[in-house]
Amino acid sequence: MNSQLVSIVMGSKSDLPVMEEAGKILKKFEISYEVKITSAHRTPENTAEYAKALEERGIKVVIAGAGAAAHLAGAMAAWTTLPIIGVPIDSSPLKGIDALLSTVQMPGGIPVASMAIGKAGAKNAAIFAVEILALSDGETAKKLKDYREEMKRAVLEAN
Amino acid sequence: MNSQLVSIVMGSKSDLPVMEEAGKILKKFEISYEVKITSAHRTPENTAEYAKALEERGIKVVIAGAGAAAHLAGAMAAWTTLPIIGVPIDSSPLKGIDALLSTVQMPGGIPVASMAIGKAGAKNAAIFAVEILALSDGETAKKLKDYREEMKRAVLEAN
Amino acid sequence: MNSQLVSIVMGSKSDLPVMEEAGKILKKFEISYEVKITSAHRTPENTAEYAKALEERGIKVVIAGAGAAAHLAGAMAAWTTLPIIGVPIDSSPLKGIDALLSTVQMPGGIPVASMAIGKAGAKNAAIFAVEILALSDGETAKKLKDYREEMKRAVLEAN
Amino acid sequence: MNSQLVSIVMGSKSDLPVMEEAGKILKKFEISYEVKITSAHRTPENTAEYAKALEERGIKVVIAGAGAAAHLAGAMAAWTTLPIIGVPIDSSPLKGIDALLSTVQMPGGIPVASMAIGKAGAKNAAIFAVEILALSDGETAKKLKDYREEMKRAVLEAN
Amino acid sequence: MNSQLVSIVMGSKSDLPVMEEAGKILKKFEISYEVKITSAHRTPENTAEYAKALEERGIKVVIAGAGAAAHLAGAMAAWTTLPIIGVPIDSSPLKGIDALLSTVQMPGGIPVASMAIGKAGAKNAAIFAVEILALSDGETAKKLKDYREEMKRAVLEAN
Amino acid sequence: MNSQLVSIVMGSKSDLPVMEEAGKILKKFEISYEVKITSAHRTPENTAEYAKALEERGIKVVIAGAGAAAHLAGAMAAWTTLPIIGVPIDSSPLKGIDALLSTVQMPGGIPVASMAIGKAGAKNAAIFAVEILALSDGETAKKLKDYREEMKRAVLEAN
Amino acid sequence: MNSQLVSIVMGSKSDLPVMEEAGKILKKFEISYEVKITSAHRTPENTAEYAKALEERGIKVVIAGAGAAAHLAGAMAAWTTLPIIGVPIDSSPLKGIDALLSTVQMPGGIPVASMAIGKAGAKNAAIFAVEILALSDGETAKKLKDYREEMKRAVLEAN
Amino acid sequence: MNSQLVSIVMGSKSDLPVMEEAGKILKKFEISYEVKITSAHRTPENTAEYAKALEERGIKVVIAGAGAAAHLAGAMAAWTTLPIIGVPIDSSPLKGIDALLSTVQMPGGIPVASMAIGKAGAKNAAIFAVEILALSDGETAKKLKDYREEMKRAVLEAN
Repeated sequence: MNSQLVSIVMGSKSDLPVMEEAGKILKKFEISYEVKITSAHRTPENTAEYAKALEERGIKVVIAGAGAAAHLAGAMAAWTTLPIIGVPIDSSPLKGIDALLSTVQMPGGIPVASMAIGKAGAKNAAIFAVEILALSDGETAKKLKDYREEMKRAVLEAN
Repeated sequence: MNSQLVSIVMGSKSDLPVMEEAGKILKKFEISYEVKITSAHRTPENTAEYAKALEERGIKVVIAGAGAAAHLAGAMAAWTTLPIIGVPIDSSPLKGIDALLSTVQMPGGIPVASMAIGKAGAKNAAIFAVEILALSDGETAKKLKDYREEMKRAVLEAN
Repeated sequence: MNSQLVSIVMGSKSDLPVMEEAGKILKKFEISYEVKITSAHRTPENTAEYAKALEERGIKVVIAGAGAAAHLAGAMAAWTTLPIIGVPIDSSPLKGIDALLSTVQMPGGIPVASMAIGKAGAKNAAIFAVEILALSDGETAKKLKDYREEMKRAVLEAN
Repeated sequence: MNSQLVSIVMGSKSDLPVMEEAGKILKKFEISYEVKITSAHRTPENTAEYAKALEERGIKVVIAGAGAAAHLAGAMAAWTTLPIIGVPIDSSPLKGIDALLSTVQMPGGIPVASMAIGKAGAKNAAIFAVEILALSDGETAKKLKDYREEMKRAVLEAN
Repeated sequence: MNSQLVSIVMGSKSDLPVMEEAGKILKKFEISYEVKITSAHRTPENTAEYAKALEERGIKVVIAGAGAAAHLAGAMAAWTTLPIIGVPIDSSPLKGIDALLSTVQMPGGIPVASMAIGKAGAKNAAIFAVEILALSDGETAKKLKDYREEMKRAVLEAN
Repeated sequence: MNSQLVSIVMGSKSDLPVMEEAGKILKKFEISYEVKITSAHRTPENTAEYAKALEERGIKVVIAGAGAAAHLAGAMAAWTTLPIIGVPIDSSPLKGIDALLSTVQMPGGIPVASMAIGKAGAKNAAIFAVEILALSDGETAKKLKDYREEMKRAVLEAN
Repeated sequence: MNSQLVSIVMGSKSDLPVMEEAGKILKKFEISYEVKITSAHRTPENTAEYAKALEERGIKVVIAGAGAAAHLAGAMAAWTTLPIIGVPIDSSPLKGIDALLSTVQMPGGIPVASMAIGKAGAKNAAIFAVEILALSDGETAKKLKDYREEMKRAVLEAN
Repeated sequence: MNSQLVSIVMGSKSDLPVMEEAGKILKKFEISYEVKITSAHRTPENTAEYAKALEERGIKVVIAGAGAAAHLAGAMAAWTTLPIIGVPIDSSPLKGIDALLSTVQMPGGIPVASMAIGKAGAKNAAIFAVEILALSDGETAKKLKDYREEMKRAVLEAN
């Protein structure tokens, strides 16, 4: 129904097993998204062009996953005023604390919204994107409330 | 022009010097907001009631600041599906790393969007809220682009 | 003999392998307990209701285990004045330091008593609960002293 | 009314400005307490003797504050089965993370209930002691509920 | 004698008190340098253009200082194959560990050479730039050896 | 030849795989040692008695290994003025940083000499004990120099 | 074509699996290099002699890998004014944060250029060495640009 | 009475305010010592020569203080088999955790005995040196016991 509202970007194919958690959620909410591999450092030009074109193409929210000195979310944020959600990925010996600090400690002026490290963060990035989209889409808002109820039931049934 | 679109919540009056950075930005963008002191732990009932009523009252985005074992953003997120932006505050001997991890490491299902520790984070929380609001408000979107230009000029002029 | 004196709560079924260390100790001391899965974020209402009813139901001590941005112990503490013992669980890439800080760094006014990360903490949470109960139960106090002797013998025999 | 129910121990006089936060709370609740300076390392014999005599003397709960490689709470716990509440003190260049880990990471068998680093922790240690005492003292339980209401009002009035 | 061999870049004027340590060293070695304020996030276009033009303009080495989620050195490295030396600046509550990890933990393919946090790092960045330049400039190589001797004498004379 | 000059203590049998690295070195240097399992927390009385008797029994140096809130080395140091060498053991989810800080951050007055975390630390503890013993034993001093030569040769031969 | 321009040093054979990532890159760029095992602590004399002779032998850049309290890069830097690139190796329970801080936090006067922890750092150390050599070698400069293009294509093709 | 038994070394004059705590203790115990400023990095040759001559000159124990990437203790240990006690100094923005890890995490083979960060560590380094010297000097051993008694009295009198 919706189409191409969210962009999921990551710096390398190896981030896919983490970032696909975001895709699963968006699918569940029937929000169409695209997946893009682009690197802040290896393909800065493509990253810039991709980021600059997003708004015009109708993308509303960006989910950017990266590990180590994770600059991708910040690099995207530099080129667009769309909301950027960052997912720090645990891909270095430091277990993601490097990616977390590189993502969340953005200096004043250019925000990145950081989620938790790893799969929980990727999943929550998508739910947060849905929360943003739900602000102007009643049907998505309803689905979000249903999803909450579903989670609630799962907890209650676990007892 | 806009009215009561954003709620800035914090657990105690002592968080105000940090959180007023968010207010300054919202004022600049002429986005009306309310400031609420409510504690996840000392006034859980009021926090729950306040959170549950937000959507109906027309609030679109919540900015929640807290220090130490910073639960306020997560507690708000538990009671509403509005987007919650968390600001970790540097108010314990651990310099905010406790507040950051308590804010950002939310388990899968209930997202909080974490900003940087302290004033930079409070400022960016407001800009991020503006980015969300700009998705469905062309005038705000334009202001956001102007703000970027203004920042750009400030950097260029510093040379 | 005792009945329902302790409540062991956790946010998800996946915390059970850690938290059952607490159950084993309580069984050993013949202190009856209940196990409850309830989430600070996914089922805040049930958590609140459960916490508020504890005292009337005769529960004396709560042991709450959670990982990542571990809010469950603090959320329980917000709704009851019973002693809450928190067990940080190592379930994120940060190896439990996030859960520890989210549990122990409670701001002044609403205490949570934090134990060590993981199974050692779950075990000690139960022993600490026993120490509290032993204050008004001579038999349990005696068992506690026997348990100490037993541990002592185990160390001495290891030589 | 109550008398000598709580012992506040600390390793050195320099810890007093932090630990007196605990005393203030106990005074407020009219729970009599004693203050003892004793060191796990410099006066191990006195610490052992003091700890071993506590139960017989009617002390119910111990609050132990220490900084750096903070062993005092654990040392007390080794000599008595009374509940020991540890307060990590921020007195080294590492800002109390050393004291926190030395206090909270107790191995299985001998628990210490850790509070937050510094004054917030000292205050909460006393409230937690009150919560324990309130389990068998209706009047204290009532005061505890009044205290919660008082905190609640303070938050509400701050708005 | 030399001219415009080194570029010292930083994201904001507030980084100047740290970065001028680099300038002092280059002056001492009579290596001409330029100072540029450019931001990876607020002026990404100018940063890209500036970086891409460096090689042609004869710049040999870049020293880039930034704090918090310090992306400037990495952003420069993305646009040029000149050696980039990063200086993490202690400008957030986390005391520079965020800037250090954001600078040094670059993923494979695009290196940044990280120096120590703060003034010591800025000074060493310049000395390291001199070491690089000295590889193809005998006079600079000689000055470098004299500088070492001078440091040596300073230590010996301190006794 | 030498006999019972070194005591290797540890809090539990599970520390043996780490601590036996110390034994191997002492055997190599033909320095007789004893191994003792004693716990600062579970057998404080035995630990105290054992520590107090060491000097009279001719023990010169103590190597104490412990994990988590590692108090054993400090507890030994409290009861004797013999040199105590601490080995932090990696036995909690925090990978030994808790044991390291609990061992090394001893407050002024009662020193513990900390080695590295884990097997490297256990090995070095024994070499350090040998260095101490070599001060008054020419033969051991000679063996120490031979051991250095042997290590040197191993490095050179690796090329 | 080039010959012996780079020296790759490491403290022990066990560092080879990490450091060979540097060798692979140098081979790819047809830059001849030597591999040397030498220890800052076990063979200080050989390390000093080796370092002092490097310049005369025509070596231009040194890549030094070490783990734990990683002193090798700094030790090399003490004996030569050639540029030293340090690679922190993840070989202790602390996951390389010890090696990183020991490598990067060099005091003012003697710089070491630190790369990321582990294989990514070893690879980048070699690329950084190539960037230095490319300053005075047009052919290498061209290969460097080709290598960037190759990386770019790999990212683009991953989509 | 004793003469030149201990060497206190440090990398720069600025470390003196910390390291003089060691001197005060040695004076108290009437153990003669020398103070030497020598740098692992700026004067490696002098450091090596100084270290190699120590044993012959009758020095028994070395106390080495350094900050940041603190290599001095390890560098001394590389050149002599005398016991080296390291004092990490809090002189960088990282508050001494860099110096601690650079000092304590020595790889197997060459031990350094690390004390706490800063003045407490400098004081304890001297007490530990006294403990070593006391092994073969009955008078010093007696003074050490008196010192313990003195500390004990100070604690008892504080009550």
